[in-house]
Amino acid sequence: MGGDHGPHVTVPAALQALSVYSDLHLILVGDRPEILSVLRQHHASESVRLQILHADQVVQMGDKPLHALRRLKQSSMRLALDLVANGQANACVSAGNTGALMTMAKVVLKTLPGVDRPALVSALPSMHGQPVYLLDLGANACCDSEALFQFAVMGAVLAEQVTGNPNPRVALLNIGTEEIKGNDQVQQAARLLQSTPHINYIGFVEGDRIFTGDADVIVCDGFVGNVTLKTTEGIARLLMHQIAQSVKQNLMARCLSWLLKGRLKKLFLQMNPDHYNGASLLGLRHIVVKSHGNADEMAYLRAIEEAITEVQRQVPGKIKARLESVLLEKSC
Amino acid sequence: MGGDHGPHVTVPAALQALSVYSDLHLILVGDRPEILSVLRQHHASESVRLQILHADQVVQMGDKPLHALRRLKQSSMRLALDLVANGQANACVSAGNTGALMTMAKVVLKTLPGVDRPALVSALPSMHGQPVYLLDLGANACCDSEALFQFAVMGAVLAEQVTGNPNPRVALLNIGTEEIKGNDQVQQAARLLQSTPHINYIGFVEGDRIFTGDADVIVCDGFVGNVTLKTTEGIARLLMHQIAQSVKQNLMARCLSWLLKGRLKKLFLQMNPDHYNGASLLGLRHIVVKSHGNADEMAYLRAIEEAITEVQRQVPGKIKARLESVLLEKSC
Repeated sequence: MGGDHGPHVTVPAALQALSVYSDLHLILVGDRPEILSVLRQHHASESVRLQILHADQVVQMGDKPLHALRRLKQSSMRLALDLVANGQANACVSAGNTGALMTMAKVVLKTLPGVDRPALVSALPSMHGQPVYLLDLGANACCDSEALFQFAVMGAVLAEQVTGNPNPRVALLNIGTEEIKGNDQVQQAARLLQSTPHINYIGFVEGDRIFTGDADVIVCDGFVGNVTLKTTEGIARLLMHQIAQSVKQNLMARCLSWLLKGRLKKLFLQMNPDHYNGASLLGLRHIVVKSHGNADEMAYLRAIEEAITEVQRQVPGKIKARLESVLLEKSC
Repeated sequence: MGGDHGPHVTVPAALQALSVYSDLHLILVGDRPEILSVLRQHHASESVRLQILHADQVVQMGDKPLHALRRLKQSSMRLALDLVANGQANACVSAGNTGALMTMAKVVLKTLPGVDRPALVSALPSMHGQPVYLLDLGANACCDSEALFQFAVMGAVLAEQVTGNPNPRVALLNIGTEEIKGNDQVQQAARLLQSTPHINYIGFVEGDRIFTGDADVIVCDGFVGNVTLKTTEGIARLLMHQIAQSVKQNLMARCLSWLLKGRLKKLFLQMNPDHYNGASLLGLRHIVVKSHGNADEMAYLRAIEEAITEVQRQVPGKIKARLESVLLEKSC
């Protein structure tokens, strides 16, 4: 039900996913009549592989997380998470209220042993084509060094499992590359990572190296990560605005702006942490993928595919195992 | 002597400035023989308006700030700051080691009453053409709410004086616009600013609104500010890289890249906190402008012009007066 378009995007995306993945089963959680009518529009109906679970409530984009948690226990978001908690589903994909999803997921699905707080992570494009995983994107406004350390471990496992890179390079986002640079949390996290054999820690990277492919996983607190990614969106918009201005200047620019806008829009979509579907909530005992509210059918399909990949790779279990070995190592 | 090019950029830029500003006097601080030889190359010599102060030492880009402070007291950077402290110069412009410049400037020039820590500020482009002042850009990795409050006051005065905007809109950079969003420092700073009549505080802005012109002054801690601006540089580079790739694709794209590169380079220069000459150190009793080490003659000239403007507007005095009235208000 969530996002800007609700079932008008999620339902056709679900039908697409079912046609591509023959062993996929989906449960659409939300207003049954509305979902059925959209299904009808697409000449589809409920089936063994496409079930509907009716929900009376919907979490609105403006709802406060705690309100959603306490008052919206019959919401489509909550019921979808309950399905995962009960083992009736392997993963939850939502385009709804991010804060509410994170708060509900943490309570309903619980964090893995050794994880204090889940992190929101997404892949970004890099010059070398390989994705760069940046976390946390805003789940945690404040993070101590231990949280940053946990993010590094979780991000490394995700990169390993999704990209197949056996030894992803992990870096901490900082305001300089020398050891003395940055705040206490970052410096302490660096010491923790340096003393952990299970992680390929390569040191600090600055903001200008996020997209160069120098690192496969880049770790920062949720405040920095969120501002960083929102800034990329702002710059993409500024560029598109400047291009639009240049159109007025001459005919040459007019033709070129046409090509350019497409390229910038593509980059913009890649850059935008939300538009880049989907962001994963790492550190939970189960899989939750957040799609942007603006996602269209294709973008939402990508979010579903992200969930499928994480289910196939059993990402939460891999993170659990890695954390155990790391924590064991530390305690020795 | 500082920056990547030393006197080969600073000397011709100084000659340019002298030709444009007939009442300007400059003192070139550094290796006299080297400066004289560059002057000769430009058919110029020492004069009443262009003096040379010889310095035996140079702060290297890799020197640690404390090393520079304690061991390089005869460096061109230190002697230039001494000239300002002694009243023999109105402002210091340097393309040298940023950390060393900030550390030396704080000790040699002292902070204004009521200012705990100076902040590095620069103007960024916005969609509406008006510059947006972002601070801190990295002078302070950690900032409490009081420091953020002081940055807001200082940034507002700079915007007033340089752009002539009598009532600049001041915002705090945050990961959401609701009151509950962000960390304690930002939320406390918001309460401080809301209760201060001397500041046109408009609330929180997210990273995607930095360049929209919604605010004239945007305040954040030095960690966030530095990462944010370095990220803009990284994205500009990524875009240029992608354009370069597209050149291979087809002729249309080839023409496109030609126009685009210029535009992106321009934007890149504007975006890069360092390239965007020059960044001012606010909160000191005197004027210090930091030019990027990569600055060419024109860019370094802009840094000199920034210093001239701040001298003409007596920015430190205006900040001092504003802080006093604000602190008086708070104590009542």
